[in-house]
Amino acid sequence: MKIINLDYAAAAPVDPAVLEVMLPYFTDHFGNPSSGHQLGRKPVEAIEEARVKVAHLIGADARDIIFTSSASEANNLAIKGLVEAKKKKGNHIIASSIEHFSVLNPLKTLQKDGFEVTLLPVDQYGLVDPEKLAEAITDKTILVSIQAANPEIGTIQQLDRLAAVARQREVVFHTDAAAAAGWIPLAVDNPGVDLLTIAGDQFYGPKGAAALYVRRGVRLVPQVEGGIQERGMRAGTENVAAIVGFGEAARLATESLAERAEKTALIRDRLKESLFREIPHLHLNGHPEKRLPRNLNVAVEFVEGEALLMRLEMTGIYVSSGSSCASQALKSSHVLKAIGLPPEKAQGSLQLTLGHDSSLEDIPYITEQLAQVAELLRNMSPLYHKFIKEGQ
Amino acid sequence: MKIINLDYAAAAPVDPAVLEVMLPYFTDHFGNPSSGHQLGRKPVEAIEEARVKVAHLIGADARDIIFTSSASEANNLAIKGLVEAKKKKGNHIIASSIEHFSVLNPLKTLQKDGFEVTLLPVDQYGLVDPEKLAEAITDKTILVSIQAANPEIGTIQQLDRLAAVARQREVVFHTDAAAAAGWIPLAVDNPGVDLLTIAGDQFYGPKGAAALYVRRGVRLVPQVEGGIQERGMRAGTENVAAIVGFGEAARLATESLAERAEKTALIRDRLKESLFREIPHLHLNGHPEKRLPRNLNVAVEFVEGEALLMRLEMTGIYVSSGSSCASQALKSSHVLKAIGLPPEKAQGSLQLTLGHDSSLEDIPYITEQLAQVAELLRNMSPLYHKFIKEGQ
Repeated sequence: MKIINLDYAAAAPVDPAVLEVMLPYFTDHFGNPSSGHQLGRKPVEAIEEARVKVAHLIGADARDIIFTSSASEANNLAIKGLVEAKKKKGNHIIASSIEHFSVLNPLKTLQKDGFEVTLLPVDQYGLVDPEKLAEAITDKTILVSIQAANPEIGTIQQLDRLAAVARQREVVFHTDAAAAAGWIPLAVDNPGVDLLTIAGDQFYGPKGAAALYVRRGVRLVPQVEGGIQERGMRAGTENVAAIVGFGEAARLATESLAERAEKTALIRDRLKESLFREIPHLHLNGHPEKRLPRNLNVAVEFVEGEALLMRLEMTGIYVSSGSSCASQALKSSHVLKAIGLPPEKAQGSLQLTLGHDSSLEDIPYITEQLAQVAELLRNMSPLYHKFIKEGQ
Repeated sequence: MKIINLDYAAAAPVDPAVLEVMLPYFTDHFGNPSSGHQLGRKPVEAIEEARVKVAHLIGADARDIIFTSSASEANNLAIKGLVEAKKKKGNHIIASSIEHFSVLNPLKTLQKDGFEVTLLPVDQYGLVDPEKLAEAITDKTILVSIQAANPEIGTIQQLDRLAAVARQREVVFHTDAAAAAGWIPLAVDNPGVDLLTIAGDQFYGPKGAAALYVRRGVRLVPQVEGGIQERGMRAGTENVAAIVGFGEAARLATESLAERAEKTALIRDRLKESLFREIPHLHLNGHPEKRLPRNLNVAVEFVEGEALLMRLEMTGIYVSSGSSCASQALKSSHVLKAIGLPPEKAQGSLQLTLGHDSSLEDIPYITEQLAQVAELLRNMSPLYHKFIKEGQ
């Protein structure tokens, strides 16, 4: 059976060209970058080269890139590291209500420690209103954290306007750009963000390497302490091969960002049209235009997402019923709740994320299968029959 | 020029057999373990298989293994995580004075936050006296952290006696076994340790995967928060390939531990004999017997370690002048200071760590080169000429 992977937000394969560049660092150039001798020099050079490539993707200076092991670690470092450094200045933090759990959960912990946290509401499309941000900032606000784009519903925030509001009030602005980097243009100097999270595995780099951009002058308290790797900001022997792969994936993404985005968005748009044409009771989650090129999120009314997912799996189509970080933990998505989606729609929502092998040719099969499965499940739904009865 | 690597503590290549097992997880089995569908199942199984293998190496139950990205991260999690969980019970922490910086630096930070830290002295061989540990424990002590073996001077602690002291006083006992695991037998149930750090890159696994063993019932506060990976103890998409490699390296280490240790210690002992026979003014650092099989550490009196290292590098021999995590940060080793080595010996100390390609055949060359370099540098040393004059 042909596999159609529409869950590339959860994971993607490493680009073979990226893996090839990584391989020598496992076996040949295996030295410790901190070694004072020749065996460490090639790894040092390779890491610094990767740093330049990653910086280039987001228009940053390589000296402002700190490598971490994951976007989650980078988000934790940004939030806890900044708050610890600034806690004498204030105790108020602002984030959006649709952030990733690696932003929301550190904030919950900080709340227990006496910090005040404001979670800004979003509109029906998932957008944060810059004016609401301006209203929420107080003299005690030390950090604003708003994602560049949402991995689940794909909505792209107005980062420049949000960052400008924070900057005007001299509040540090962090953005979790894990879902956005590699897919939409990001330039840290343009929106003027102070901290930015980026993950290589979101654009065909390996797992195990991510980064936090830290604007010069913004002080963070390191969270993993020990050796003086990453300018003392993140201890631990560098995962050289993964960093090298991250760099190469960033280089390829920089090179082909526009082309990849255009190609993917075209297929995504055709898929969307096809699904909405053929399947009744479908609802688009997220913004109609301001959305990640590879993301589609639809609510299939009257049915349950997990059941849809399992039935689709039997046809070779893999989708997600929400954030994979949450799928085992939570029944319903905090993102869909935040955009005001009623539970009966939220529970039937599917996140479709396209990837390198997505193709226009697969659209008829996907449409047909989803239409069949949706109809089958809808007919089994008491809610649907109630709706029909009331409609008559 | 032939390369003789005697700096395997800093870094080692990934075993080709380990890399082979890892490769499919970059490109084929790339799914997210948290995905609800088929693409995540193979990665989940692979991670759980690796967990069993890692647990087996230290005689633990797989359910008590938490994967991290490095030993430094595992040490930080053990210390900060335990202290945060236990802070209502007391504010006193005990460690040895020769711990790795990823133990010592978190303790320094905790000290600033009001915790009391006792760093136990060691004897001339680097051993912690269990009686001194017993004396140091107070009603406020919540954690003891003493390494299984020292990576720099190789000294193996009497872990069973130290852990027994802590257990008797109902204090949680952590051991950083990063240098020891894979080279000496470790069984968490035997010495009764509660928390144990282990790193795969110390026994031919990849960088980027390490673990913390956490005895059932010992509560830690997670340090990287977000998704519910690793039973909620460590958020972030799992670095599946690295974890798989860590597991395989652990399996191979378990299988061949005795053989590897015996073979390596034999070469190390012959090298030691040869060096001490041919080179005057040499001093052994660390314990004569209780030491890691691959470790040798010698003070070359009257000369400077960095100069030795650079001269040896020109002959193709790579050694370390101390911990690679410290080599760029600090002039002299806190470990050599703690064993009471006078500065003139400490500055001329070399750490030689053998590896898979170390050979008896290389001993004459290593001896000859080190003898020549040592003589050259000694003759350039004012300290040496003063010593000669005073001796006459």
